[in-house]
Amino acid sequence: MSRFWSEVVHGLTPYVPGEQPRIEGLVKLNTNECPYPPSESAQQAIAAAVGESLRLYPDPEARALKEAIARHHGVPVEQVFVGNGSDEVLAHAFHALLRHESPLLYPDVSYSFYPVYARLYGIAAREVALAEDFSLRVDDLLAASPNGGIIFPNPNAPTGMAMPRAEVERLLRANTGSVVVVDEAYAEYGAESAIPLVAQHEQLLVVRTLSKSHALAGLRVGYAIGQAPLIEALTRVKDSFNSYPLDRLAIAGSVAALDDTAWLARTLERVVATRERMSEALRARGAVVLPSAANFIFASFPGRDAAELLTLLRGHKVLVRHFKRPARIAPFLRISVGTEADTDSLLAALDAILA
Amino acid sequence: MSRFWSEVVHGLTPYVPGEQPRIEGLVKLNTNECPYPPSESAQQAIAAAVGESLRLYPDPEARALKEAIARHHGVPVEQVFVGNGSDEVLAHAFHALLRHESPLLYPDVSYSFYPVYARLYGIAAREVALAEDFSLRVDDLLAASPNGGIIFPNPNAPTGMAMPRAEVERLLRANTGSVVVVDEAYAEYGAESAIPLVAQHEQLLVVRTLSKSHALAGLRVGYAIGQAPLIEALTRVKDSFNSYPLDRLAIAGSVAALDDTAWLARTLERVVATRERMSEALRARGAVVLPSAANFIFASFPGRDAAELLTLLRGHKVLVRHFKRPARIAPFLRISVGTEADTDSLLAALDAILA
Repeated sequence: MSRFWSEVVHGLTPYVPGEQPRIEGLVKLNTNECPYPPSESAQQAIAAAVGESLRLYPDPEARALKEAIARHHGVPVEQVFVGNGSDEVLAHAFHALLRHESPLLYPDVSYSFYPVYARLYGIAAREVALAEDFSLRVDDLLAASPNGGIIFPNPNAPTGMAMPRAEVERLLRANTGSVVVVDEAYAEYGAESAIPLVAQHEQLLVVRTLSKSHALAGLRVGYAIGQAPLIEALTRVKDSFNSYPLDRLAIAGSVAALDDTAWLARTLERVVATRERMSEALRARGAVVLPSAANFIFASFPGRDAAELLTLLRGHKVLVRHFKRPARIAPFLRISVGTEADTDSLLAALDAILA
Repeated sequence: MSRFWSEVVHGLTPYVPGEQPRIEGLVKLNTNECPYPPSESAQQAIAAAVGESLRLYPDPEARALKEAIARHHGVPVEQVFVGNGSDEVLAHAFHALLRHESPLLYPDVSYSFYPVYARLYGIAAREVALAEDFSLRVDDLLAASPNGGIIFPNPNAPTGMAMPRAEVERLLRANTGSVVVVDEAYAEYGAESAIPLVAQHEQLLVVRTLSKSHALAGLRVGYAIGQAPLIEALTRVKDSFNSYPLDRLAIAGSVAALDDTAWLARTLERVVATRERMSEALRARGAVVLPSAANFIFASFPGRDAAELLTLLRGHKVLVRHFKRPARIAPFLRISVGTEADTDSLLAALDAILA
């Protein structure tokens, strides 16, 4: 507390990211990173960008990256916005598109950064409860309207459960007066993307990141796809905040990563195969595992306290994540899909603990 | 314009950064980049950070970088805040520290991003006119009070003129009720830093960047130094905006760059020597050159229209920058200090044009 703070600062409860521990030998399944190294060609492109040109500002438009994203998704480059990780893209979306008279809607179980953004920008928000089976129902979103915007992850986090594209489309047809942000941070791992709906729906913004799908969490690259007026709002805020959010190395690396579609297909296939094996193995050990379309699973172990289980797993050098709130998800652990070896370590630790 | 925009977006007039042209052979003296390549050890540190670890999130605190900055300036690490370029650091400072009932003060001739930030965060602002000789006078700032904060670049941009530390201290002694931000983007080139005043003045925040002094504009690293309560406000906003503003490569490279003090001393010496030669050569050609403590000079050519001169210089493949407003600086061109060869090209072009 300080008299020098702007008023908004007093009311902030910052988001707390998953731990980045510096402990050797830890099996790190707590922040949903991809367990495999990023594309070799992305690494080479970054290495090639190290040199004298670092003295020069990057392209403030990051045009090369926008073009790579446009190629990747088959959309016009005017429909692409880029930022320093999808967290920055989301922040600008809250600021530029989601502050209106009616409250913003998001699921009660969802990315816990949303309420933080809402507070930062003074946006009234209303949580919409997930159904009993942890799915997000379009009818529940519509029943909570009028709204000043809707945002949800697809697949949802931390449940991992995806909404079918037909349902997203039904929402868009019924909700035409406010922006709908579909946060597809994990979509490459199995959700039906809403990107093909952008052409028909002027109120749709799809947000993506290279952190999970492209194994580039350390490079900080996110983007959004939407019709030009929505992109213009984001660009106006970005150009009133930071002209150059993406450095030269991030631009070079992410262009090459997006163009390496063979790497992407191979890696997604491996992670999805491990996810299915992990889910089955956990169910075989009595766990309730929600159906995941992401690179993590959300699982509870009936009769076991999840926070305690997390501590015991940490004792076995396996790090997972636990969310205390809301109460209905407190029995669950969120476990990132690691390598096959990571999964073996997890299962061995669980066997030792549950025995 | 779109009904989907938040209200704030309609009133934004984004900052327009200097051009980043992709023309071969251009002498680029328009965006104040350092003309020499960054430290070899910084380049090596970045290259060494390219690899599998890019799949992992960076340290959200960027602790290694904060420690390097603390070492560089001899301040406690708790007094250091880091961001994705000093533009992001400034944006957070506006949001977290400069929104109060009384208006924010800044010079009428100054970094043209300040009014843009003020509009983005709904901050009332008042411009304080520079004196006749283009210096910023402490008494003029005090006369314009009460204020909700004060911000100015030192050395100022685009004039290049520095305020002595004793004057900054006099301002701090007289203005104890609001935050004073000293934006030292160019300070390493010749201004007396206010960093030694931080220990005694709880309302002082000094903002810095590695873009100019360390030849790393392409890497996007900025920082602020101030007492812990100011740093906490910035951190709360940052953690409500983007947990990981600095990527792994930027952290690795900037740590090494800060530790390479021999490179810094050598490079500053070269740039300052060229600046003095350039200033003298321009004065010898009839120009009015303001006394610069930065890596650029601000010069007018009596009887010549500056905008026209810029166009003619561009015809000779020399790019400089011109600001139309306010009217009193319209006769000036801002010319970055380049290499000795860049300076020869500039002077040859001018000789051809002025002949």
